[in-house]
Amino acid sequence: MTDKPALEFWFEFASTYSYPAAMRVEEVAGAAGVSVVWRPFLLGPIFQSQGWDNSPFNIYPAKGAYMWRDMERVCEAQAIPFQRPTAFPRNGLLAARVSFACAEEPWSPAFVRSVYAANFAEDMDISDMGVIGALLAGQGQAPEPILEVAQSPENKEALKNQTMQAKENGLFGAPSFVVGEELFWGNDRLEQAVEWATR
Amino acid sequence: MTDKPALEFWFEFASTYSYPAAMRVEEVAGAAGVSVVWRPFLLGPIFQSQGWDNSPFNIYPAKGAYMWRDMERVCEAQAIPFQRPTAFPRNGLLAARVSFACAEEPWSPAFVRSVYAANFAEDMDISDMGVIGALLAGQGQAPEPILEVAQSPENKEALKNQTMQAKENGLFGAPSFVVGEELFWGNDRLEQAVEWATR
Repeated sequence: MTDKPALEFWFEFASTYSYPAAMRVEEVAGAAGVSVVWRPFLLGPIFQSQGWDNSPFNIYPAKGAYMWRDMERVCEAQAIPFQRPTAFPRNGLLAARVSFACAEEPWSPAFVRSVYAANFAEDMDISDMGVIGALLAGQGQAPEPILEVAQSPENKEALKNQTMQAKENGLFGAPSFVVGEELFWGNDRLEQAVEWATR
Repeated sequence: MTDKPALEFWFEFASTYSYPAAMRVEEVAGAAGVSVVWRPFLLGPIFQSQGWDNSPFNIYPAKGAYMWRDMERVCEAQAIPFQRPTAFPRNGLLAARVSFACAEEPWSPAFVRSVYAANFAEDMDISDMGVIGALLAGQGQAPEPILEVAQSPENKEALKNQTMQAKENGLFGAPSFVVGEELFWGNDRLEQAVEWATR
């Protein structure tokens, strides 16, 4: 047991930089003896409250062009496959509902990583129920009962509440890391967030 | 002599994260044997072309609140003084004109650092000609002739051209680092930019 505070990893499935973060968060935190709490949320409502009806990477072309090149470099450095999706952003609502419903399951982090790889390495449509079902099956789970729970009114509402909590905590983008009261934004801030947890 | 490509450090005096970057760029690059080319530019015209008439940190309050807290942490980790300016953003046009006019002078990087410290550590108004003159005097320079050259039509025009070049190179924020054709955005990407220059 450790008395270090946990690292909350707040992620949105449509978010590009959440992909490399999801792939390395457990390794980086684990090496420092810090536990990870996976917290899916939705950027859509947060972006909407900022006046954006699309990804800022689409609204601001120079920023988007940079991001796609940067993702190539970041993924290469991290030795994870990357392929620019033919559609961006893909709707991550269904995946977020499933991962929220299953957050306590031991296979949940592996499922989250498989969704990111499907979107950003294999160019698959993660808004498609068949794709998400196949990824659940890939974790040895029967998809139907999970998809039913994920789309229940209670689970939808609870994910909305988690998103409201994100906004109340000051989150404005993904990935974000929260340690106690401290917020860190961006995949490249994972190390600082972990360091904060070990103070 | 080295045949490594130089690191272009593109900075805007109003930019918060350009402050810690300016304070460490020569040390980090120098340790890797990479030379630094200091390139002042203006974010105003670039932000305007994105539809912003103010700093995004003022337009998007959650992002701004995060940035001010993050600046405290970043400056603490880097052991440089930080004080949130009572006015933000401060107009960096005059300082940019001076640093552009004097870019080849050996004291120029030290002058740039002194302007950042005045704004972000000492809460001084860097748009004020008396302040900039005093900072020039602090580098052992007579302010008047430099201020005259800085405000000449030729120098104003040349700085505008440098800003247009920044935009053509895909820059959309500051600090940015350019190595050959590669763009890196943000103080926390300095290490990757330097690493790129040593490949």
